Amino acid sequence: MNVRKWPRKNDAESIRARQQALGLDGGVTAIDLEPFARAQEMLTGAAVLPVSVVGPLELELGEYELREPDGELAETGRATDSVFVPLAHTEGGLSASLHRGARAVAESGGFRTYVLADRITRASCFVCGSAEEAVTLSRFLDAHVAELRRWLAERVEADPALSKYAKLREVETHVVGPMCHVMWAFTTGDACGPNMMTRNAYALNMGFVMERAPVKPERAILEANMGGDKKPSHRYFERGGHGKTVIAECTLSEEAVRRVLRTSIDDLLELSWAGTHGAVASGMQSVAFTPASAIAAIFAATGQDLGMVGTSSMAHGTGKRVEGGLNCTIRLAGLEVGTVGGGTTLPYARSWLSLMGCAGAGKVYRFAQIVAAATLALEISASAAMATAGSHEFFKAHHERGGLR
Amino acid sequence: MNVRKWPRKNDAESIRARQQALGLDGGVTAIDLEPFARAQEMLTGAAVLPVSVVGPLELELGEYELREPDGELAETGRATDSVFVPLAHTEGGLSASLHRGARAVAESGGFRTYVLADRITRASCFVCGSAEEAVTLSRFLDAHVAELRRWLAERVEADPALSKYAKLREVETHVVGPMCHVMWAFTTGDACGPNMMTRNAYALNMGFVMERAPVKPERAILEANMGGDKKPSHRYFERGGHGKTVIAECTLSEEAVRRVLRTSIDDLLELSWAGTHGAVASGMQSVAFTPASAIAAIFAATGQDLGMVGTSSMAHGTGKRVEGGLNCTIRLAGLEVGTVGGGTTLPYARSWLSLMGCAGAGKVYRFAQIVAAATLALEISASAAMATAGSHEFFKAHHERGGLR
Amino acid sequence: MNVRKWPRKNDAESIRARQQALGLDGGVTAIDLEPFARAQEMLTGAAVLPVSVVGPLELELGEYELREPDGELAETGRATDSVFVPLAHTEGGLSASLHRGARAVAESGGFRTYVLADRITRASCFVCGSAEEAVTLSRFLDAHVAELRRWLAERVEADPALSKYAKLREVETHVVGPMCHVMWAFTTGDACGPNMMTRNAYALNMGFVMERAPVKPERAILEANMGGDKKPSHRYFERGGHGKTVIAECTLSEEAVRRVLRTSIDDLLELSWAGTHGAVASGMQSVAFTPASAIAAIFAATGQDLGMVGTSSMAHGTGKRVEGGLNCTIRLAGLEVGTVGGGTTLPYARSWLSLMGCAGAGKVYRFAQIVAAATLALEISASAAMATAGSHEFFKAHHERGGLR
Amino acid sequence: MNVRKWPRKNDAESIRARQQALGLDGGVTAIDLEPFARAQEMLTGAAVLPVSVVGPLELELGEYELREPDGELAETGRATDSVFVPLAHTEGGLSASLHRGARAVAESGGFRTYVLADRITRASCFVCGSAEEAVTLSRFLDAHVAELRRWLAERVEADPALSKYAKLREVETHVVGPMCHVMWAFTTGDACGPNMMTRNAYALNMGFVMERAPVKPERAILEANMGGDKKPSHRYFERGGHGKTVIAECTLSEEAVRRVLRTSIDDLLELSWAGTHGAVASGMQSVAFTPASAIAAIFAATGQDLGMVGTSSMAHGTGKRVEGGLNCTIRLAGLEVGTVGGGTTLPYARSWLSLMGCAGAGKVYRFAQIVAAATLALEISASAAMATAGSHEFFKAHHERGGLR
Repeated sequence: MNVRKWPRKNDAESIRARQQALGLDGGVTAIDLEPFARAQEMLTGAAVLPVSVVGPLELELGEYELREPDGELAETGRATDSVFVPLAHTEGGLSASLHRGARAVAESGGFRTYVLADRITRASCFVCGSAEEAVTLSRFLDAHVAELRRWLAERVEADPALSKYAKLREVETHVVGPMCHVMWAFTTGDACGPNMMTRNAYALNMGFVMERAPVKPERAILEANMGGDKKPSHRYFERGGHGKTVIAECTLSEEAVRRVLRTSIDDLLELSWAGTHGAVASGMQSVAFTPASAIAAIFAATGQDLGMVGTSSMAHGTGKRVEGGLNCTIRLAGLEVGTVGGGTTLPYARSWLSLMGCAGAGKVYRFAQIVAAATLALEISASAAMATAGSHEFFKAHHERGGLR
Repeated sequence: MNVRKWPRKNDAESIRARQQALGLDGGVTAIDLEPFARAQEMLTGAAVLPVSVVGPLELELGEYELREPDGELAETGRATDSVFVPLAHTEGGLSASLHRGARAVAESGGFRTYVLADRITRASCFVCGSAEEAVTLSRFLDAHVAELRRWLAERVEADPALSKYAKLREVETHVVGPMCHVMWAFTTGDACGPNMMTRNAYALNMGFVMERAPVKPERAILEANMGGDKKPSHRYFERGGHGKTVIAECTLSEEAVRRVLRTSIDDLLELSWAGTHGAVASGMQSVAFTPASAIAAIFAATGQDLGMVGTSSMAHGTGKRVEGGLNCTIRLAGLEVGTVGGGTTLPYARSWLSLMGCAGAGKVYRFAQIVAAATLALEISASAAMATAGSHEFFKAHHERGGLR
Repeated sequence: MNVRKWPRKNDAESIRARQQALGLDGGVTAIDLEPFARAQEMLTGAAVLPVSVVGPLELELGEYELREPDGELAETGRATDSVFVPLAHTEGGLSASLHRGARAVAESGGFRTYVLADRITRASCFVCGSAEEAVTLSRFLDAHVAELRRWLAERVEADPALSKYAKLREVETHVVGPMCHVMWAFTTGDACGPNMMTRNAYALNMGFVMERAPVKPERAILEANMGGDKKPSHRYFERGGHGKTVIAECTLSEEAVRRVLRTSIDDLLELSWAGTHGAVASGMQSVAFTPASAIAAIFAATGQDLGMVGTSSMAHGTGKRVEGGLNCTIRLAGLEVGTVGGGTTLPYARSWLSLMGCAGAGKVYRFAQIVAAATLALEISASAAMATAGSHEFFKAHHERGGLR
Repeated sequence: MNVRKWPRKNDAESIRARQQALGLDGGVTAIDLEPFARAQEMLTGAAVLPVSVVGPLELELGEYELREPDGELAETGRATDSVFVPLAHTEGGLSASLHRGARAVAESGGFRTYVLADRITRASCFVCGSAEEAVTLSRFLDAHVAELRRWLAERVEADPALSKYAKLREVETHVVGPMCHVMWAFTTGDACGPNMMTRNAYALNMGFVMERAPVKPERAILEANMGGDKKPSHRYFERGGHGKTVIAECTLSEEAVRRVLRTSIDDLLELSWAGTHGAVASGMQSVAFTPASAIAAIFAATGQDLGMVGTSSMAHGTGKRVEGGLNCTIRLAGLEVGTVGGGTTLPYARSWLSLMGCAGAGKVYRFAQIVAAATLALEISASAAMATAGSHEFFKAHHERGGLR
């Protein structure tokens, strides 16, 4: 089969042609692909992931809205809820562990979650003839943020190729050499939003900057790696700006630590101390145990972009003895989630989002907080398994349940 | 529903009980879960991901074996092959883009891939009473590597709870404060191997170190974050040690760049230059464009651990003008893949692995190289879309195909 | 001699007592210490560093002022100048190399320098009872920036222990766990300013935050490592905020590269490419060759804080072929310099600052730009020595001049 | 004055000519420069730094030797000593603070120090035509380490331009793209050694690799930034390899913490916890307070390379409650020090080294340990000043003593 001749369309016939050419049959071709016909090109079959449901997570969540015109994120209320969480994965022990963490927290008064920020950034780069010109451009942009916002707001009304949802909020420039990198920070409603912001950033680059800048850049690059897209970076670990910045916390009671987690607060604190220093020693940006396991499992069930597991898992966890027990928190700097658009509209994903009350518009902050709470549940339980002297529990957990490995 | 009462077993009745309690029906409950019954706890339904197949990738791959007793990775031959690659995802444009990259490379003579290293590391930590004791312990371990290897080799023969596949290769210590971190580096055959190495590391900790060390550590922690597990870190980005270190390269012809990728070598080099400096400026460890998209899509299709998308995507790409065109490479420091064990044995995953000739024993180096080549194909095509002045192509690609977002 | 009895004062008698107790005589006790009596405690002798003077550097510098009340840094003019630079060090080859770089740039039209930002940050940390409280505190501070500025401005008028020069400009909060880190960003006139901002930050912490915050923090820590003090960090490498952010650039002519630097533009670009990737591979934050050598030598001559050599040397350099030759730049993210206060008032330092026209008030931006230009001069020359095939020049340079090592 | 005409020699007449051309007189020209005539080019005057002497530090130090032929660092004994430390700087409060720390430690039983490793690395880069060739080269080098060592050992006997002291110990390769980076790890006796290793690395590059490699590299670059030279990097922070890796520790008694440091163990632990998380949050590689202040002050007094302050200050500190008090440690990953060669042979430096019993051959490990102990003394005292609730002590310390700022 020649690479140039591979049929590319997603009509039933093309799909069948590919399946036959590859000799595929059985399970992978048995699932109806029609609902997925617009989700990707050269559709050929299906993959099935088993989904567990664990919980309920007992949470106190914030309610949030973006204030116009600045896009300030305001907390408008708080409410409690019980939520079951779907986990799509094949890692023996993970669901049981997350469930155990949720139990320990439920018995300790539940999770509290906070959304601290909401932005998504496309970092374009204008290559100029010199640093002098790049500095001039950067000063021009710094001085025209209001105009840039207004120009885009008008433009999206007129041009259906642009998105009304991707609203420009802040503009930051970074000059290095003859390059003027420009961080266009957007909000994108309840969508994760990379594509809508890409279109709008392109319009800003070509329609505003390249037309009006006092110096003519040699080149406009839509994204030149300051945007935090799919590769963890310190900028977005510290400041957020690529998704929702969320904190989940709880205060575990001595009783729950002992009875449910089968360890002690002292043991957990020792582990936290050693694990933090181990992270520093190995140049690990995150300080956490296994946030990616929880985040990947929820992402896979709910149609999120799995290429964003690494960036969404940048995490900073803490543990501290407080009155009443052990305060445990996790800070997810940039949880790249949506409840509309992308894979979230597809059949299975939509069902799993619905289970959590997170399908559709107005749900993205809720969803982000549930993901953070579930992540903390797993952190707690996995830490507990590792914390007891000699980590006998951890060993047992993997030994007994991880039979597939 | 109380968190303590949630039924946990995976017999048909428990599954049904959970589905009913949650009011689930439709697609998510329609797929037979029996084959997944041992893959995770509290199984409740399924998620389906659409899979495209693109290619063929034209590759020259290395053949490798681990030499005993040291576990040296030796290249024993090289061969060429054409491989179709399955991609499970819902990102419009991704499959078409990767396919375009594969075409450009095929027209330029194909990919060449190399496996440079193969290890997986569990980093335990022994908390001692002082740095003095930790230094003593570290000297003891440095001096007893051969004994540690031998002890484990004997032990796995006797104890069925341990794994014969997870062979201890190197031992490295790192003293910081009163902690002696110990990096146990294993090979794990064709499995990704986290669980098997966990069991064997636990045996080393409790059976050898805690029994025989000249100082008695206060505490043995099975993993304290120097092991590179699921969180990107510089140690594993530079040195590998958590999966396969693989390089893929190709030399794109001027003709392929112009005709297939619709850009120029100069444009690609400018982008590479700006993108490298953008990565540095934002504290991005990887220098690459979107490796996680390709890796996540193949991982999801083939039963790999999606929690390892972030670590497996640590990437260092380069571009350089050479005689005959543009040399493009990507270095994946730690591709955490398996062709046996874990999710790879499950129905859909096994089919997609089989499509690439990568199912079962003896296939893991082949698989790692195919993943690296596919990743490079996407890097090239995504870069090309971004490289032309003004990035008009990139805009178009997202605009036309990314309709779902 | 008992550690508790060591005489601590700096009167002549105490100095003499220490010298005798230690048996010191000769050169180290021959220099009059009286001018240094207030510079540090337990003064006992002197160290002498030889100083070369190289140049002149031909520069086009910006003139800057801070606009009130926001502290916006505005460029008010540009001027050219020729400046000789003093270098205190003992590294054979360094002065000659920097001189050669200056010559190459002079023959290519000179340096252009830009100050992009000017702030110095003290990052206090308020430890609260929970993340919930830390979030509350952070919202309160975000909403009271104007009040904080006003409060401090009034307070410094009334309290002579505080500094009128350390003006609060921005306040940024960062919540992680139950901690609310607060970045107090100041300007400090022509002083480097760590002590004056420390006093004012303390006043803000204790006089405003601990008194008025809606939650009572358990603890106020004056600095908890988010402030970038004396340890390089990504935050300050990217964004500045601890000193002056300065860019120096030049465009080397082909002729100067060939005749003065004895290499070629192609060779320099190859080196830049390999060196950038080497920096990435080793987890080096800076991308540069040897900025610390130039910065340390000027700091030592001019009474700057040598403990800030590492942070002030965080550097991002670029090279790019442009019309007319090779564009070379260096970005120093946080050059921690002063022309008043601290060591700058002492005899030798003041003389060397005067040589550059940089002693006293109103000179700090000029000084920062000269340092950046000198740093770029050394970068260029050291790179050239390394760039020719086989680096024969570099070898020769060290071999011939580095006789002392 | 034209940049090309600046006189470059260091005879008395040239020095005088420069002084007159610049209009220099007074203190900066009053010191006899003759002893410095070979230390740098274009010598023109002097800078004087005041030096305090604090102590004594009460230490238990290790005695070490390098075992041939492998260069293994072996501890051959331990001894106690009392050492006074010279500090050249102008930072009010620093000497008093370090002294206070030394007192607290002396009253708690003194410091214990350990040298863990000793290497210095020159990282050359061979640019090949493809990754394929770079892989071939890397395999060749990996297989010829013994030959490389032998070749160099013979060569240094024959060629006076090479150094007998810079002995090749390990060779590590790192392939990225068509580059084969090669880390040549040396020991350099009691010298810091950058120049001697540079000469020997050059010989290896040109005399062995370029002559005998199975592929002909296009280019040999003597250093391409994987060598850790003067810019902090994760590689050298974690593994050492650029100087001595040293740990200093002590266990502070409750009594000393309370009476000398005027704080409590709980307060110090809280600070350590918050400071560690602050470091992580800001992307600070080191976890420490102000190691560079102590290191710069000793380096300036003793003729070390001040351009290495940043790299030598990479530090990882810990604090932990143990029986008997608070265990405090600092790990300096790569302390770049010498007791022979470079600036150490010059008059003032030699005197200050002698004061510590560290001048000349056989003293470098002693010196490295004293530096580490002094650094820890300052860490402890500076932390204590910051640790009490509200950090009132820290404020007072700066307020009272920092009058110069």
